[in-house]
Amino acid sequence: MTRADGRADDELRPITFTRNWQDHPAGSVLVEFGRTKVLCAASASVGVPRWRKGSGLGWVTAEYAMLPSATNTRSDRESVKGRIGGRTHEISRLIGRSLRAAIDYKALGENTIVLDCDVLQADGGTRTAAITGAYVALADAVAHLKAEGALAGEPLVSSVAAVSVGIIDGVPRLDLPYEEDVRAETDMNVVMNGAGAFIEVQGTAEGAPFSRTELDALLALAEKGCADLTRLQHEALATPVG
Amino acid sequence: MTRADGRADDELRPITFTRNWQDHPAGSVLVEFGRTKVLCAASASVGVPRWRKGSGLGWVTAEYAMLPSATNTRSDRESVKGRIGGRTHEISRLIGRSLRAAIDYKALGENTIVLDCDVLQADGGTRTAAITGAYVALADAVAHLKAEGALAGEPLVSSVAAVSVGIIDGVPRLDLPYEEDVRAETDMNVVMNGAGAFIEVQGTAEGAPFSRTELDALLALAEKGCADLTRLQHEALATPVG
Amino acid sequence: MTRADGRADDELRPITFTRNWQDHPAGSVLVEFGRTKVLCAASASVGVPRWRKGSGLGWVTAEYAMLPSATNTRSDRESVKGRIGGRTHEISRLIGRSLRAAIDYKALGENTIVLDCDVLQADGGTRTAAITGAYVALADAVAHLKAEGALAGEPLVSSVAAVSVGIIDGVPRLDLPYEEDVRAETDMNVVMNGAGAFIEVQGTAEGAPFSRTELDALLALAEKGCADLTRLQHEALATPVG
Amino acid sequence: MTRADGRADDELRPITFTRNWQDHPAGSVLVEFGRTKVLCAASASVGVPRWRKGSGLGWVTAEYAMLPSATNTRSDRESVKGRIGGRTHEISRLIGRSLRAAIDYKALGENTIVLDCDVLQADGGTRTAAITGAYVALADAVAHLKAEGALAGEPLVSSVAAVSVGIIDGVPRLDLPYEEDVRAETDMNVVMNGAGAFIEVQGTAEGAPFSRTELDALLALAEKGCADLTRLQHEALATPVG
Amino acid sequence: MTRADGRADDELRPITFTRNWQDHPAGSVLVEFGRTKVLCAASASVGVPRWRKGSGLGWVTAEYAMLPSATNTRSDRESVKGRIGGRTHEISRLIGRSLRAAIDYKALGENTIVLDCDVLQADGGTRTAAITGAYVALADAVAHLKAEGALAGEPLVSSVAAVSVGIIDGVPRLDLPYEEDVRAETDMNVVMNGAGAFIEVQGTAEGAPFSRTELDALLALAEKGCADLTRLQHEALATPVG
Amino acid sequence: MTRADGRADDELRPITFTRNWQDHPAGSVLVEFGRTKVLCAASASVGVPRWRKGSGLGWVTAEYAMLPSATNTRSDRESVKGRIGGRTHEISRLIGRSLRAAIDYKALGENTIVLDCDVLQADGGTRTAAITGAYVALADAVAHLKAEGALAGEPLVSSVAAVSVGIIDGVPRLDLPYEEDVRAETDMNVVMNGAGAFIEVQGTAEGAPFSRTELDALLALAEKGCADLTRLQHEALATPVG
Repeated sequence: MTRADGRADDELRPITFTRNWQDHPAGSVLVEFGRTKVLCAASASVGVPRWRKGSGLGWVTAEYAMLPSATNTRSDRESVKGRIGGRTHEISRLIGRSLRAAIDYKALGENTIVLDCDVLQADGGTRTAAITGAYVALADAVAHLKAEGALAGEPLVSSVAAVSVGIIDGVPRLDLPYEEDVRAETDMNVVMNGAGAFIEVQGTAEGAPFSRTELDALLALAEKGCADLTRLQHEALATPVG
Repeated sequence: MTRADGRADDELRPITFTRNWQDHPAGSVLVEFGRTKVLCAASASVGVPRWRKGSGLGWVTAEYAMLPSATNTRSDRESVKGRIGGRTHEISRLIGRSLRAAIDYKALGENTIVLDCDVLQADGGTRTAAITGAYVALADAVAHLKAEGALAGEPLVSSVAAVSVGIIDGVPRLDLPYEEDVRAETDMNVVMNGAGAFIEVQGTAEGAPFSRTELDALLALAEKGCADLTRLQHEALATPVG
Repeated sequence: MTRADGRADDELRPITFTRNWQDHPAGSVLVEFGRTKVLCAASASVGVPRWRKGSGLGWVTAEYAMLPSATNTRSDRESVKGRIGGRTHEISRLIGRSLRAAIDYKALGENTIVLDCDVLQADGGTRTAAITGAYVALADAVAHLKAEGALAGEPLVSSVAAVSVGIIDGVPRLDLPYEEDVRAETDMNVVMNGAGAFIEVQGTAEGAPFSRTELDALLALAEKGCADLTRLQHEALATPVG
Repeated sequence: MTRADGRADDELRPITFTRNWQDHPAGSVLVEFGRTKVLCAASASVGVPRWRKGSGLGWVTAEYAMLPSATNTRSDRESVKGRIGGRTHEISRLIGRSLRAAIDYKALGENTIVLDCDVLQADGGTRTAAITGAYVALADAVAHLKAEGALAGEPLVSSVAAVSVGIIDGVPRLDLPYEEDVRAETDMNVVMNGAGAFIEVQGTAEGAPFSRTELDALLALAEKGCADLTRLQHEALATPVG
Repeated sequence: MTRADGRADDELRPITFTRNWQDHPAGSVLVEFGRTKVLCAASASVGVPRWRKGSGLGWVTAEYAMLPSATNTRSDRESVKGRIGGRTHEISRLIGRSLRAAIDYKALGENTIVLDCDVLQADGGTRTAAITGAYVALADAVAHLKAEGALAGEPLVSSVAAVSVGIIDGVPRLDLPYEEDVRAETDMNVVMNGAGAFIEVQGTAEGAPFSRTELDALLALAEKGCADLTRLQHEALATPVG
Repeated sequence: MTRADGRADDELRPITFTRNWQDHPAGSVLVEFGRTKVLCAASASVGVPRWRKGSGLGWVTAEYAMLPSATNTRSDRESVKGRIGGRTHEISRLIGRSLRAAIDYKALGENTIVLDCDVLQADGGTRTAAITGAYVALADAVAHLKAEGALAGEPLVSSVAAVSVGIIDGVPRLDLPYEEDVRAETDMNVVMNGAGAFIEVQGTAEGAPFSRTELDALLALAEKGCADLTRLQHEALATPVG
C-alpha cells in the first residue's frame, strides 16, 4: 500500500522554485512539483481596468493555460479552437481569487499585476503548483515595484500556497501526481495563507460521495501540506538570485 | 442583528417546486428559493456522445444560463457576445458533476439526459437552486423513461440537493439572498446526497481568510439545509401533478 | 374540416398577459398565445448608443431567443454554438422595428429601452406573441419612467400587435399553432398599430406561390386578429397589478 | 415631382444580364439594375447536405455578401469581424427561399446548387437584383447539368423575379435607387414567379404605418415590375453567349 | 516544351487595368492577368488608427479576399466560417507592406487609405495581380485627394509592381497560371518598385530545395517582369478615363 | 560600429539545444539563440488527417505561439482574444513548410508529427530559432518511432536550419537580436537544408527598398549562418542524453 514514488502519504513531491527564469516580467518563477512544471510570470503595469479607474485601488488577475505538449497525449491549442474551455476558465478564476487574497489593493495603488501561469509539463496538481509559484512571482514583482519607488506602502498582506489532497483506495494522500489523481475517489484543492487560514476549499466526489470524517482527514492533510509549502516559499524568497 | 426577511440564521427561504411547467421536456420544474426562480428541464434522448458509444453506459450533462432580464441591472446575452463567460462554464460543470452523482450509468443504458437550468430571476443562490430543482426534473424524466419501458433497472441511486451558506457580519447563515451574498466575508456552496454525504464543497474567502472553526460551522449549517431540501424534494415528487 | 383545438378559422387562441412577472425590469410580461409562452422584459437605462449621443433622441432595440427546452425536441443553445443563427437575427430585427413604430424618440429623450423576448415554450407564433407581449412590457416601462419623472412628454404614439395567418388545406386561418404552421402552404406575419395601419407584412409561400386573392383574404384575417389583440392589450393594461 | 433619373414612377432602371461572367461556376451572371451590380454564381455539386441524404431530393441554398468597397462609405468586412450580421443572414435566407420556389427537388435529384450573390456595387435594391440575377444563373446551371446528362427530368418549374417598391413623398414608385430608398416612408420587396403568383411579400413602414390602400397600390406596381423583369430574363436566356 | 498558352518563358500574360470600375471608392481598378481578375479598391478616409493619432503621419492597409465562386471548385466563405484563414492573413499583410513602400506617410498626413483586393476569378498569381492593380488604385486615390486639396505634398514616392516566377520541369518561367503553379518545383513572388529595387522576395521550395543558381535565374526573370508591369501601369495611368 | 553584444557581423549568438526537456512528446528540445528561448515539441501519432487517409503517406504540421510573458511588454493571449493573429498564422505555416522539406512522406507512412514551437522568451529571431530547434525535435521523434519499430524506411531526407540576416546602418549582419531587428532597413529569413540548398527565402524592405547587390550580400551571410547551425544541430544530436 505504498505510493509509486515511495513518498509517505503526507509528504510533498520535491518542490523547486527557479526565480528570474525569464528576463522581461517583473517576477518570473519556474515552479516544479515533481514532474509538474509551471512557468509563473507576474507582469506589472501602471493603471487599472476601466471599471476601477479613479478608485486609488490596484488590481491583480490571472490567466492559466497549458502547452499542447504538456500532457500525456497532445492536447489541442485553445487559440486554434477559438475558444477557452470551461476548465481553463475555472482555474484562471481560482488563481486570480487566491492571489488577490494576498494583496492590499490600497497599498498597491492604481497598478495592475497580471499573473500568467503556463503549464510546461503536467503531472497532476497543475493548479495548486500554479498558485504556489504565482505567489513567489508576485512577491518578486512587488519587490521590483518597491525598488522602483512605485509603491507607497506594503501591498503583500500574507503569503499564499495551495495543495491537492485526495482519497486513493481509501487512504488520504497529499499532493497527487497524475496517476493517483485519476484513481482518486475524492479530490480536493485547498488554498491557504501563511497564517494557516483558508482562502479556498474545493472538494469533489469523483467516485462515491464522501463523509464528514473523510472531509476532516483531507483538510488536516492539506493544512500540513500548505504549511510545508509556505516554509519552502519563504526559503526561496530569502535566497538571493543572480 | 436579524435578517432582512425575518428568517432565522439556519432557515431556508420559502421553497417551491412547480413540476411539469413546460410540456415538451421529459421533466420540467420551476424551482423557487424565495425570489430566485430557475426553470430546470430534463430532456432525454436515445444515444450517448461519440466517446461513450458502445459502452452500454448513459450520460448526464447540464447547461446553466441566465436571462438578461433576470438580474438587477440587465446583463448582456452570451449568445450575442459570441462566447460563454467563465462563471457560466463553471456553474454548468458544477451542476453536471453534481447530478451525475445521482445516477447509475449502467441502469440508464445508452440514453442521454441534458439538464437545462435557465435562471428567470436571480436573487442569490441560483446555482444551488438549479441543482436542487434539476434533481426533481431528473427524477421526473427517469420516471417518464421507465413508464415508456426504455430502462431495464433503476438509474437513480440517491437524491441530490444543494445550498449556499456564508458568514455575514461574523454570523454563519443559511441560503443567502443577493443582498446577503454581496456582503458575505466567506461564501460556500455545498452539494449533498439524500443520505447526508458530500458531493461537492466549494468555499471561498470573499473578504478575510477563514478559520477551521468557521469552516466547521458553515458545514454544519449546510448539512441542516440540505436535509431540509431533501425532505421538500421528496414531498414534491410524492405529490401527483395534473 | 374543423381545427384540432375546435376554434373558428378567424378565432385567436386563449391570450393571457401576466404583468410584473419579474421584479427587476421596468416592464415584464409573460404572454401566452395558447401553449406558446414568451417572457417579454423591457429594461430601461439612461443614455443611448454612441452613434446617437447628443441627438436628444431615445432608442428602442430588441433581442429574441428561445430556451433549448422550449421546443418539441431540445434545440442547441446559441451561446454554446458561439453564434446566433439567421432565424434569431431576423426575428430580433423584426421585433425591434415593430416596437420602434410605437415610439416618439424625441419624447423618450436620451433613454434606451431593451426588449428581451425569451420563448419559454414554443407552439407556433412565437414572433407575433413576442411583439404583442413586448408592447405591454414597453407600456409598463414607459409608465415606470414617467412615474420617476424621467420623461418630459409621452413617447408612446400607438399600440402595436402582431398575428400569424396562413392557408391550410386551402383554408385561410388565424393564429396558427405549430401543427398548423408546419402544414401551411402560405404563411404570413402581420404587425399593425392600434389605429389599424400596417407596420410590417411578411408573407412567404411555403408550398405553392399564392395569388392576389389569397393574399387579400389573409390580410383581412390579420386585420381582424390584430384588432382583437389590440383590445386585449388595452384591457390588460387597464387592470391594476399587485 | 419627377424622379432624379428621369424615370416614370412605374419604370425600371436599365437592366442588364451579362452571362458567363466567370469561367468556373456552372452559371455566372453579372446583373445590373442601374448602378447596382451583383455577381450571381450558381455552383453545382453532386450530393446533398447530410440531413437530406438518401431522400432522392436535391437542394438549393444561397449566400449574399457585399464587398467593402461596394457602398458609399467603405463597410467593414464580415470575415474580419468574425461574424455575419443580421441583415446579411436575412437576405441570404430570402434569396434561398425565393429560388427554391423555382425548383422541383425530385427532378434535380441528389444534387446541390449554391447561389453566391456578391454585391460589387450598391445603389439600392441589391436583394431584388440578386434574386432576379440568381434565377438566370440558376437556369444556366440547370442547362449545364442537363447537357452533362446529370438530370433525369426538368427541375425548373418557373422563373423567379423580384423588385422593390416604395412610397416617396406620398408617391408609390418602382425599383428604388439608394437616394429614394433612404427617403421612403414605406418600403416593400416583392418576389413573384413567371406566372404572376407571389413567392414572398415583405413590407415595412420605415416612417409612418401604411394603409390598406397604399399596400394595394404598392402590390400593383410590384406586379408590373416583376412582369417586366420576367420578360427581360427570358430574353437574356434566349440570347446565345460566346 | 512550350507553354500551354503559347507564351515565351519570360513573357507576361495579357495585362489589363480597367480604372474607375466602381463609383464609390477614391480609386477602383479591375486588374486582369490573363484569366485572373482582381477588383482593387482604394478607399480614403480622414484620420488614422488610434495608435498613430497625433503623429502627423498617414496610414495604408490592405485586405485580400476571394469570392467563393472565383476558384475551380467553390470554396467556403470565410465570413460564414467565422474566421480568416492563414493564407488570407498572409496575403493581406504582404499587400499592405508592399504598398506602404510606395508612400511617404508625412506627405499623406493623417489620412488612411484601405486597399481592398477582392479576387473575382482565380487563375494563379492572384496576390501579385492584387499588388500590381492596387498600386494603380492607390495612385488614383492619391490624385483624388490632391484634387480635393486634402494633401500638402506628394505621398507617392515610387510605383510598385509584383510578379510570380517559378521553375516548371526545370525551366524558369514568368507569371504562372494555375496549371503551371501547381506543377512548379519552386515558386517565388517578387515585389519591386519602379526604380528596380526589391520590396519583397518570397521564394519557396514546393518540391526539391533550390540552388543559388536557380535562385539567381528566378530573380532575373522577376526583374524583367516587374519592369514590364511598371511600364504598363504608367501607360494605364497616363490614359484618361471617362 | 561594433555590435552591442561584441559579436562579429557574421557570427551567431551562443546556440544551445537542450534535448528531452519535456517527458511526454516523442521529441522535445529547448533551443536558445542568445536570450531567445523556444520550446520545440514533436508529438507523433498514428494516422493522418482525413484528406490524406489511405494514401500511405505521412504528414507533418506545425503550430507557433508566444507566451504573453515572453515579450518586452506583456502581449495579449490569442486564446483569450478568440482568434489567431496574422503573424502567428504566417509563422506556423512557414515552420510547417520548412520541416516538411526534411521528410519523405512515404517512409513516414500514415503517421502524423505535430511540431509545437512555443516561444518562452523573445529576443529576435524566434521563427528561425523555432525552425532550427524543431528539426532537432523532429529527428528525436523519428528516432523514437524507429526504435518502436513503427517505421519501415528512413523518413529524414536532410536536416533543416534557419537564420535571420539584415542590414543595420548599411552593414549586413547575421542573427539579429531584437534591438538590431527593430533598426534593420532590410530583414531576411532564410531556411536551408544540410546540403546547402534553399528551402525558403523571405526578404522584406522594412525601410528603403534594397538592391540586388545588398540581396546577394545577405544571401551569402545566411549561407554561412545556416552552415554553422547545421554543424551545431549534428553535434547536439550526436551527444547522448540522460
